[in-house]
Amino acid sequence: MEGAVLCAANHAPLTPISFLERTALVYPDRPAIVASGTGGVARTWRETRDRCIRLAAALAGLGVQRHDVVAAFAPNVPAMCELHFGIPMAGAVICTLNSRLDAAMMSVLLRHSEAKVIFVDCELLHVAHEALRLVSEAGARPPILVVISELLDEPSQPDAKLARADYEYEHLLSDAGSSPELAIRWPADENEPIALNYTSGTTSRPKGVIYSHRGAYLNSLAAVLLNDMATMPVYLWTVPMFHCNGWCLVWGVAAQGGNNVCVRKVSAASIFDSVARHGVTHMGGAPTVLGMIVNATAKEQRPVPGGRRVTVMTGGAPPPPQVLFRMEEQGFMVIHSYGLTETYGPATVCTWKPEWDALPAEERARIKSRQGLHHLGLEVDVKDPATMRSVPADAKTMGEVMFRGNTVMNGYYKDAGATADALAGGWFRSGDLAVRQEDGYIKIRDRSKDIIISGGENISTIEVEAALFSHPAVEEAAVVGRPDEYWGETPCAFVKLRGGGGGDDEAEKVAELMEFCRARLPRYMAPKTVVLVDELPKTATGKVQKFALRERAKAMGSLPASSSSSKRSPEGTAWRSKL
Amino acid sequence: MEGAVLCAANHAPLTPISFLERTALVYPDRPAIVASGTGGVARTWRETRDRCIRLAAALAGLGVQRHDVVAAFAPNVPAMCELHFGIPMAGAVICTLNSRLDAAMMSVLLRHSEAKVIFVDCELLHVAHEALRLVSEAGARPPILVVISELLDEPSQPDAKLARADYEYEHLLSDAGSSPELAIRWPADENEPIALNYTSGTTSRPKGVIYSHRGAYLNSLAAVLLNDMATMPVYLWTVPMFHCNGWCLVWGVAAQGGNNVCVRKVSAASIFDSVARHGVTHMGGAPTVLGMIVNATAKEQRPVPGGRRVTVMTGGAPPPPQVLFRMEEQGFMVIHSYGLTETYGPATVCTWKPEWDALPAEERARIKSRQGLHHLGLEVDVKDPATMRSVPADAKTMGEVMFRGNTVMNGYYKDAGATADALAGGWFRSGDLAVRQEDGYIKIRDRSKDIIISGGENISTIEVEAALFSHPAVEEAAVVGRPDEYWGETPCAFVKLRGGGGGDDEAEKVAELMEFCRARLPRYMAPKTVVLVDELPKTATGKVQKFALRERAKAMGSLPASSSSSKRSPEGTAWRSKL
Repeated sequence: MEGAVLCAANHAPLTPISFLERTALVYPDRPAIVASGTGGVARTWRETRDRCIRLAAALAGLGVQRHDVVAAFAPNVPAMCELHFGIPMAGAVICTLNSRLDAAMMSVLLRHSEAKVIFVDCELLHVAHEALRLVSEAGARPPILVVISELLDEPSQPDAKLARADYEYEHLLSDAGSSPELAIRWPADENEPIALNYTSGTTSRPKGVIYSHRGAYLNSLAAVLLNDMATMPVYLWTVPMFHCNGWCLVWGVAAQGGNNVCVRKVSAASIFDSVARHGVTHMGGAPTVLGMIVNATAKEQRPVPGGRRVTVMTGGAPPPPQVLFRMEEQGFMVIHSYGLTETYGPATVCTWKPEWDALPAEERARIKSRQGLHHLGLEVDVKDPATMRSVPADAKTMGEVMFRGNTVMNGYYKDAGATADALAGGWFRSGDLAVRQEDGYIKIRDRSKDIIISGGENISTIEVEAALFSHPAVEEAAVVGRPDEYWGETPCAFVKLRGGGGGDDEAEKVAELMEFCRARLPRYMAPKTVVLVDELPKTATGKVQKFALRERAKAMGSLPASSSSSKRSPEGTAWRSKL
Repeated sequence: MEGAVLCAANHAPLTPISFLERTALVYPDRPAIVASGTGGVARTWRETRDRCIRLAAALAGLGVQRHDVVAAFAPNVPAMCELHFGIPMAGAVICTLNSRLDAAMMSVLLRHSEAKVIFVDCELLHVAHEALRLVSEAGARPPILVVISELLDEPSQPDAKLARADYEYEHLLSDAGSSPELAIRWPADENEPIALNYTSGTTSRPKGVIYSHRGAYLNSLAAVLLNDMATMPVYLWTVPMFHCNGWCLVWGVAAQGGNNVCVRKVSAASIFDSVARHGVTHMGGAPTVLGMIVNATAKEQRPVPGGRRVTVMTGGAPPPPQVLFRMEEQGFMVIHSYGLTETYGPATVCTWKPEWDALPAEERARIKSRQGLHHLGLEVDVKDPATMRSVPADAKTMGEVMFRGNTVMNGYYKDAGATADALAGGWFRSGDLAVRQEDGYIKIRDRSKDIIISGGENISTIEVEAALFSHPAVEEAAVVGRPDEYWGETPCAFVKLRGGGGGDDEAEKVAELMEFCRARLPRYMAPKTVVLVDELPKTATGKVQKFALRERAKAMGSLPASSSSSKRSPEGTAWRSKL
């Protein structure tokens, strides 16, 4: 329009750095970061900004240039919050590594990312040293190592460790300049990279998901709104910050002038203690975190103060009804969300409507188990990946979950081919299969790679798991396909029972669970094999590693055709006609 | 970074249209718009989206092109909410006109904006007709007139009026297509214009402030967060939607899936009635709206249901302590905000901190009377306009309030000169004078054009008014400069007393008020003239029209030098040394 201009007065690149700048002005003396139980660190937003500026200045001093990658390898310690601002303020890209990586995998990611500097928590120093040795051995230049020595004062931590780092975090900060004018390299373009997040794929080539300043800004605000976070929230860090930058909430909590309660090790005791001591308003977590809360002992439990409720955002797998109800009784309100590293974390939310409050408990759990609809910043659809046509909202037709919008990644680092594949057709293809229900909400049926194809029919392992979860004795369950001579594959369940194994009556328990499932599912979906286990193999973020279970199921060998064809085929016929 | 791409999958222009699209999916059956008291209109978000699509299709059918201006001239009726989406969905620019404009001013704005279509509420049809006649008379092409005939069914509204419009709103919608694919013209670039807002300047040339889709999107979210609006808010429309697009909340409420409670005429009765009937959670208003609440009669008042609190965002002038306390007692929590049309409405907020809750009442009011600090989307600073240096945070040094960021206007329509002046130096110059207090919060001292210069000293009329407001008998007060032979000018107060005029003891009341001020202010700041009035002249948004009062003060003639010099000079000397 005539008279309209774009200039410095009315246009600035969107960046989460602006959250820290504003919050340090508005809330200078309010708590920014407290470490729950480790040395009593408690810093205000003024101090935090000052430290982040020093961090940025120090990185520049170490030779870090715009768009260089700077890695972090630590649990949820206070320094992790600072790294999320200080690294981008130096114009660099933060790459948080899963703290459960082994040295071999870590060295692969360090070489792929070409990280110039790495910040390592003192407890993880041995893994990092080995990884850096492997990087050198492979002929690459290892990053400068800065140790976060939070625990070094304690007698159990020998000072010798420090000697094996290039720099120590606190020394680096205190030696650095504190001038914001000199230190902050604002992005010139909001589409510049701010973070690099390696997905938890384990065996294949590393996939480094690129986040932009724009996407991070927009998803931080979306996450704040999705969590119904008012000003000055108190956020308990039970979600690892290395996981999608803590679902973008390291930045979002800063935007709202909130307090970050950092816990080095998440446990039932540390959760209840933090809630009572710091007035936690919000937290998040994979199903394992929810499990800690509902399975806490009477000694670990403490009431949520003042009759308030703690909002808990969960994702990964829909929480079973029993877990939801027990959470509610204990003062925790669960928001069910879904997303991927490629969508900056949570992208859909099962928005709860007041009219559902009056429904029976089982019905409420069924409604809440859905993944819902997209939040601000992007769109979700369920499409036939071949035709790119949307599936009907009939709760039956499966399609692939796809996203598009400003909070979809900019691509995979150094992998133009994988980027092009993932974003082909103008949508990001999640690899998850879902249906759309009558009210539009989507419900994930499975990862496309997890789905079991039995006699030509798709079986959603999530549905089989939900049936198992509804048995009171089941604490955890995961279902994969086991080779079957007649059906191709049939469901095989790995189950952890509440209070440990099945004891002497293991065979009886297995039979009971199989019967229980047959009573609740179409026969073809009921597990033909049930294995009781003490622990399920999990990723660092608490997701069950189904590839490991698939290998175990495969190692059991095929179910013989005789048993399947003779005993099961009539039922097989029966269920076919039911569809 | 290598591998990063920008494409349809990960980049979409920011636009508030996306809020409606998402909300119609997530909250299709939740209430979107209710008309409080007029014909019982109550529409869901599904219906609202359908109607907005029809509106967009209808506009295209009328020949409206991308970036054409479409005007609206109506109070807060349901159609106003729809126009805020339907017009941008047609690719056009919404220009909401102040419903108190007279035909002459309106014709000036219609010619300046070259509006192609105008939507007119049936109650304002006579003004619009006259304005369109004036447009024709001036040789310009008048816009197509669409009448919003909400009240036409009522006997007092003659059907004849409809005959004098080109189209009727409901007919236009029902005749239009409803295909979103055909109707929605998404912006190709987020910096494209979405709205044109004429500032309330009265005599000078019209200044049409241009808003972009990007700015509107970002400020909608900022406004939601600033108001601490959880999902599904119930917003009572006491702020005119024609004023900065209702402070961007027409879009913001949609983003949160909220309900818009529309009232044709704002009154104490309609406010209390809406709060009780619709469960209002948020509202806004100029000081006049706050006045309605605190001055409501016992018959008008109704308790806020369920012991909840209604959040009220106010701006324009800081609310006096008495008003704040009475609001709180009645269940209304006031957020004090400040901004200009050029900043999409509220841009700073006096963020309230829990540690202030325990302070004495007067102290709390003093803290809350400040304009605070910028919210998300832009930055505020107080600068010497000549050097562009920031003033120190000493609560004394005055400077001009300046803004920069994504929620600063794109310019003045057809006025490159005024745009360049306003945005010179990379900051938008507000024309307001302020100090920065020790905690960084800004406090407006005056509009630069309102400030009184007396004997070379600046007098903040706002401070003098605050002193007057602290007198229990004062309901409203406005201070301007009156010519003074000795001092140049001295403060002249226009005061409306609670419960009407001063009666027989008017002179006594005037003397009492002057003495009251002298006891509370440096002598030079105390009014030398006090005039009791029944009403203060105000703009449509409830702001006192100081230019009119200045004319009245001027018409009284200069205060003679004799009185000033003889009686006041010693005091004058005294206060000078105090500074």
